Amino acid sequence: MQLTGRQYIGKRSSNEGVDLFTAYNPMTGEALECHYGEATAQEIDAAVVLAETAFVKYREINNESRAVFIECIADEIMALGELLIKRAMDETALPQARLEGERGRTVGQLRLFAKVVREGSWVDARIDPAMPDRKPLPRSDIRQMLRPMGPVAVFGASNFPLAFSVAGGDTASAFAAGCTVVIKGHPAHPGTSELVFRAMLNAVEKCAMPDGVVSLVHGVGHQPGMQLVQHPLIQAVGFTGSFRGGNALFDLANARQVPIPVFAEMGSTNPVFILPGALKDRGEKIAEGLAASVTLGVGQFCTNPGLVLVEANAATAFKSVLANEINANAGGTMLTAGIRNAYSGSLDRISKTKDVSVLSEGQPAKSSAGVSAKIFTTSVKALIEYPELAEEVFGPSSIVVEASAKEELIEAARVLEGHLTATIHGTAEDLQDYQELIGILERKVGRIVINGFPTGVEVCHAMVHGGPYPATTNSQSTSVGTNAMKRFARPVCYQDFPDTLLPAALKQNNPLSIWRLVDGEMMR
Amino acid sequence: MQLTGRQYIGKRSSNEGVDLFTAYNPMTGEALECHYGEATAQEIDAAVVLAETAFVKYREINNESRAVFIECIADEIMALGELLIKRAMDETALPQARLEGERGRTVGQLRLFAKVVREGSWVDARIDPAMPDRKPLPRSDIRQMLRPMGPVAVFGASNFPLAFSVAGGDTASAFAAGCTVVIKGHPAHPGTSELVFRAMLNAVEKCAMPDGVVSLVHGVGHQPGMQLVQHPLIQAVGFTGSFRGGNALFDLANARQVPIPVFAEMGSTNPVFILPGALKDRGEKIAEGLAASVTLGVGQFCTNPGLVLVEANAATAFKSVLANEINANAGGTMLTAGIRNAYSGSLDRISKTKDVSVLSEGQPAKSSAGVSAKIFTTSVKALIEYPELAEEVFGPSSIVVEASAKEELIEAARVLEGHLTATIHGTAEDLQDYQELIGILERKVGRIVINGFPTGVEVCHAMVHGGPYPATTNSQSTSVGTNAMKRFARPVCYQDFPDTLLPAALKQNNPLSIWRLVDGEMMR
Repeated sequence: MQLTGRQYIGKRSSNEGVDLFTAYNPMTGEALECHYGEATAQEIDAAVVLAETAFVKYREINNESRAVFIECIADEIMALGELLIKRAMDETALPQARLEGERGRTVGQLRLFAKVVREGSWVDARIDPAMPDRKPLPRSDIRQMLRPMGPVAVFGASNFPLAFSVAGGDTASAFAAGCTVVIKGHPAHPGTSELVFRAMLNAVEKCAMPDGVVSLVHGVGHQPGMQLVQHPLIQAVGFTGSFRGGNALFDLANARQVPIPVFAEMGSTNPVFILPGALKDRGEKIAEGLAASVTLGVGQFCTNPGLVLVEANAATAFKSVLANEINANAGGTMLTAGIRNAYSGSLDRISKTKDVSVLSEGQPAKSSAGVSAKIFTTSVKALIEYPELAEEVFGPSSIVVEASAKEELIEAARVLEGHLTATIHGTAEDLQDYQELIGILERKVGRIVINGFPTGVEVCHAMVHGGPYPATTNSQSTSVGTNAMKRFARPVCYQDFPDTLLPAALKQNNPLSIWRLVDGEMMR
Repeated sequence: MQLTGRQYIGKRSSNEGVDLFTAYNPMTGEALECHYGEATAQEIDAAVVLAETAFVKYREINNESRAVFIECIADEIMALGELLIKRAMDETALPQARLEGERGRTVGQLRLFAKVVREGSWVDARIDPAMPDRKPLPRSDIRQMLRPMGPVAVFGASNFPLAFSVAGGDTASAFAAGCTVVIKGHPAHPGTSELVFRAMLNAVEKCAMPDGVVSLVHGVGHQPGMQLVQHPLIQAVGFTGSFRGGNALFDLANARQVPIPVFAEMGSTNPVFILPGALKDRGEKIAEGLAASVTLGVGQFCTNPGLVLVEANAATAFKSVLANEINANAGGTMLTAGIRNAYSGSLDRISKTKDVSVLSEGQPAKSSAGVSAKIFTTSVKALIEYPELAEEVFGPSSIVVEASAKEELIEAARVLEGHLTATIHGTAEDLQDYQELIGILERKVGRIVINGFPTGVEVCHAMVHGGPYPATTNSQSTSVGTNAMKRFARPVCYQDFPDTLLPAALKQNNPLSIWRLVDGEMMR
């Protein structure tokens, strides 16, 4: 399959733009094959208008056909075979095993969402039957269910070129909810984006889905993404990326004549608390696990543990092992030269902060966008005085923050802003002694991990990959797991409808056999 | 019980403000007994800080105690007896029967929410059990449930002095979700607010709830409300009122250092489509029902039908009966002189719009804030050319918009902005012929009513009182019905927690016997 470098307005490819860009191999710094055009205003408008036309049809497609379509996308991605893995490796420097694993995650995610669509109960159907004889006033027949919102703008993420890009979690959520999608591909991996998109087009064709159910536009500049979010026909936005990027889209969306929800997952520092008993019992083992978590995927995960909180008097052995582990780390190649530069800049900023010292540095990877891991130490006092120390550093780095005593550790938890996750390592006794900590963290994060590491976000029904601002722009949602599809739906209520006009999920005889809340009772 | 005119910082009353205001009797225009202070910055800060302290305790209170507290509020409101109804009549000019009905709705709402809290399944508990032997990677034990967000700011509405004011739907939702509340009372009925608040304080006392679980501040100016929304400890906002007010709070909340969700229900025009067969079969009867709906409560409902869409050639008899009904209407007294003035201003604006004529006007009520009902007619063409005709007029008024044919009626639906409700009157044949209309309206409103009227919003499990902007600032929520409590909660995920540390809703043996999604299967 030859890459085209073109935008895709549904099935039609387009090449209006005069500004061109290429991807670069982060290993070598060399430009990769195929020039991509910066999407023009006309191309973006055409994609959104077609997404609206397609939505009117796609929203009416039954659960089974929608599920088959989503499964077919998974099959078509697998059918790309080595071609996809090869191009993704070239564009991201992520190793083959990681990308194959991520592909597995991506198709598994699509198949799980398809299963939930097929089962059908996710729409939260509720029925309050009429009470014609109620006094003083009769009650109408009132039913509600979640309905798709309309065309969704999805922004591909740099760090998950498969699982959170073109056919990633946001797109899967939108399709599952019954929405159509216009994707803004990430400019660091346009070839990977095109390959996956064309696999999706095969699924559109094979499943006879309406043209425009999905489109793909490219761009390095801000303009295409801004235009997408401002387009009056776009009804919601899914984004994974930097705080600056996500927050800018959030502000744009709120300034529209008709504001729309932005589900931006903007990363965080994911504090890890290691309590004294755990430090004593297995500090060395935790240090090994932590070093692995910090450096996993060259630290390019939203859930990378960037703050480690310990009580100083119990942390000596832990720190020593952590220093050794990091020192032995071979480093890695980051996704892009720009990301490497940002990482270096962040390390500089931290190094220059008062009361911060370097605990350990790893070996530098010998590649164009190569970096080394780095661990700092500081005190809770400094963290409170320089809150920018808690800002995300995208890369294999972390700061060990030492508390003088329990009270200071708790105080550090209290001053935290919103994060995606928090982790506590503790013995049974620790967890009893520090129970207060859990109560504090429940208000700060989307997910609390006990005696584990925050990296490795399971795609399942109970996952919350979200959290209070600034981790995300919507703390009431998750971008990973099956609840993610609810981001792109809203409740609609049907009062006194004749049965024939009701959506299948709300019909009297429950033709879909889904779980429904009938007069307050859950039943099927 | 003597009114005090004071702010309530939890149980402590306070009187720092130097600016005083009174309520006015809209019947007579006379100032009512008791001066209320404009809450000072210190008082508001104290109320929010106390709400935060109380939240840390209140969020941990078990379902049964929380339900008993909410039920006790209902009992205490009833115990106020005639005193409450009398003061509310004086402050709002709403008739006794209406206020007694609204009181019934208010306590019914509290009791329904208590029932849902006691049952417990509303928290959407989800459990994905660990798979230690899964290949290539084991799965952790992952659980999620909804948790309360923190102190909530609630703004009392003018038009529901009981059901959407101090102990109304927003406060009931917040208490049910486990949040504490600081209420900004509506300045048109401060005495009603104080009485209801003190009933709540009795419940706080009797149920030994933490001091500060609820506070009440007053103010005529914008400052107290703005300060409340901007306070860093406030986590969410519930508001029912004007577009201007709600939108201003939405903008303020988004401009905070940490933005918070604003659930503002800002009213709408609630279009009613009357299809040709229905017009022919029972146009007169629909006209009678519509006149009653337009003038109900002096038109002071968010769901008041302000736009009526018909095909001109079938509408003659309907218009004639509607004109007579409105002409015979005795008018009524609005909630405040300001609201009366705004109503007059809106009528003037519509009267002066090109291609709009008066169909009929009712009799004026002989009271200080008295008004008469008024119906206009215009064409779909004019509605499209002058979209401000679709803006809400708060009062007993409506515009009959005539289409030349089916296509124009459908076109009118397409150009609608977001509304709370839409209504379709049609015969079985009409509904078949105009099925497209339902598809369009599903994307424009929160609730579609068939062969009924939009006024009369049932408090039940399936109600959606919400809709796309500008009807609300959050189309994914409802402010009426039991789903309203989800506005003030967000999902938190617990990974690999020991059973003892899990919230009761997530413990392995399901001690609350609630419905949970376990590995994707609903079970209890």
